[in-house]
Amino acid sequence: MPRKVTIVESIHSANDQLAGENSRRLRKAGLFSVNMMASPGAGKTSLIEKTLARLTPHYSIAAIDGDVATSIDADRAAEAGAIAVQINTGGQCHIDAHMLRNALDELDLPEFDILLVENVGNLICPASFKLGTDRNVLIASIPEGDDKPYKYPAMYQDVDALLINKIDLLPYIDFDMDYFLQGVKMLNPGLVSFPVSCKTGEGIDAWIDWLEDQIKGSKTT
Amino acid sequence: MPRKVTIVESIHSANDQLAGENSRRLRKAGLFSVNMMASPGAGKTSLIEKTLARLTPHYSIAAIDGDVATSIDADRAAEAGAIAVQINTGGQCHIDAHMLRNALDELDLPEFDILLVENVGNLICPASFKLGTDRNVLIASIPEGDDKPYKYPAMYQDVDALLINKIDLLPYIDFDMDYFLQGVKMLNPGLVSFPVSCKTGEGIDAWIDWLEDQIKGSKTT
Repeated sequence: MPRKVTIVESIHSANDQLAGENSRRLRKAGLFSVNMMASPGAGKTSLIEKTLARLTPHYSIAAIDGDVATSIDADRAAEAGAIAVQINTGGQCHIDAHMLRNALDELDLPEFDILLVENVGNLICPASFKLGTDRNVLIASIPEGDDKPYKYPAMYQDVDALLINKIDLLPYIDFDMDYFLQGVKMLNPGLVSFPVSCKTGEGIDAWIDWLEDQIKGSKTT
Repeated sequence: MPRKVTIVESIHSANDQLAGENSRRLRKAGLFSVNMMASPGAGKTSLIEKTLARLTPHYSIAAIDGDVATSIDADRAAEAGAIAVQINTGGQCHIDAHMLRNALDELDLPEFDILLVENVGNLICPASFKLGTDRNVLIASIPEGDDKPYKYPAMYQDVDALLINKIDLLPYIDFDMDYFLQGVKMLNPGLVSFPVSCKTGEGIDAWIDWLEDQIKGSKTT
């Protein structure tokens, strides 16, 4: 049993080291980077599209999309105005820092202001593999249910912002927002959260404002 | 690189061997077993509750619920009339055959007619870890989006039945059922599928009929 623990630790420590290298490389190139994580179908790609539509007039943006198969997400990001790189994880259920490093090699980093990373749709393993991005953002969605913070605590614990997507569906779904936010607060007190709807556009302004504040803040420090 | 492949293969072959043992053990005890897989929030637990409500008057049912944390699902299955065992995977994103074996040790198997296994909410890794159950069932849900067969093909390829849950939300969501089913057909031609709503009860009859047919079929072979 101790042997197994050692193996797991060494995987994570090797990953953390590469994440640190990614972080230094991105900062040196002047990029502000965000890792977007969510369950399958929570709306990662749609949110990235909305974000690109708002930010591409002002910033040069790269998108790196992780998926077990296909390039559907990278294609959508590219159509929305980003220079997009697809990572096919070959069946692996998360992006790790090494995969991100290889994807960064495909980009002329100093050309860009912002990097949006779309992680693989999964509420478990992406929480354990740091990538070296400036911010980690989780997208929850109303149809997933209000118990998700309780059931996937690691994912809620370490993120810097929470988007609560598909709020247009609230009238049709039993979702107790107080119970949901109570779970979030327990795991990550003070976490900033944005109820949004990619469909109606509600709440997107607040998310974009926060993101631009983070970007500006990173330039002054 | 070849070394990595060898490790992966050996994990899966060890798992397959244990899955075979689970299968023989369950059949010997006269249990019909079903592995229910889905994305987080697709409605696994709600569907198991609905299934238990319909079948517990006629069958003795055990439920084994896998989760990274909490016993919310096993508690709900127990309240719905099953003898329930919770597997806490300790952060692992799927149940494997070894975990199922340990959970089976907690049950007096010959007491039961049916075993329902609720896998961890994940559309990737559960597809690679056979458990030894008689049937593998995938629960998709409308809010996840119509592109999921294309994006998570391995999960759709090997299952014996597909439940398409939350059809009550179809009027409020852009979901192209033809595009979805075209992807399913490409990956798993002839796969039986059941559009259902746990909320309204629509379609549950057809699912229960199919399940009972499978159970009866297993007794005569």
